[in-house]
Amino acid sequence: MDFVPVLGYVAGFCTTVAFLPQVYRAWKTKSCKDLSPGMLILFAVGIFLWLIFGILIQELPIIIANGVTFFLVLLIVVLKFRFD
Amino acid sequence: MDFVPVLGYVAGFCTTVAFLPQVYRAWKTKSCKDLSPGMLILFAVGIFLWLIFGILIQELPIIIANGVTFFLVLLIVVLKFRFD
Repeated sequence: MDFVPVLGYVAGFCTTVAFLPQVYRAWKTKSCKDLSPGMLILFAVGIFLWLIFGILIQELPIIIANGVTFFLVLLIVVLKFRFD
Repeated sequence: MDFVPVLGYVAGFCTTVAFLPQVYRAWKTKSCKDLSPGMLILFAVGIFLWLIFGILIQELPIIIANGVTFFLVLLIVVLKFRFD
């Protein structure tokens, strides 16, 4: 297996699972007030565009990582607007 | 100018500048307690790996976006460990 796609998958795994402890913390503490709404919205839009970019350059690590991250960030947005 | 790299730059612009309002909010409120430390550490490691990935596949949008994002996320990590 080539090194470069493996590196992409490991990178995508880290930046994707990173949002799991954030979802858990938001859920547990019922508080998201330190999360900037501007950050969440810009980040969600950007991740969606990375997803399209990954599809166009046909890089599967980019597609999978950004697809899952987009879902988790939307979840954090929902929690923020529910708890704040 | 080709559409695909432009899309990559716009995506990178969004996911990068997204962290500016977060840095500003953390600085202004002097509070980062709703930010998960696990998220910050995993995200910083992942962004660093995306940077290496971008260098290896020679995709400049990935290199620039992740380089700047890595710097901003490190800044948020420093603010968190200073304020918490």
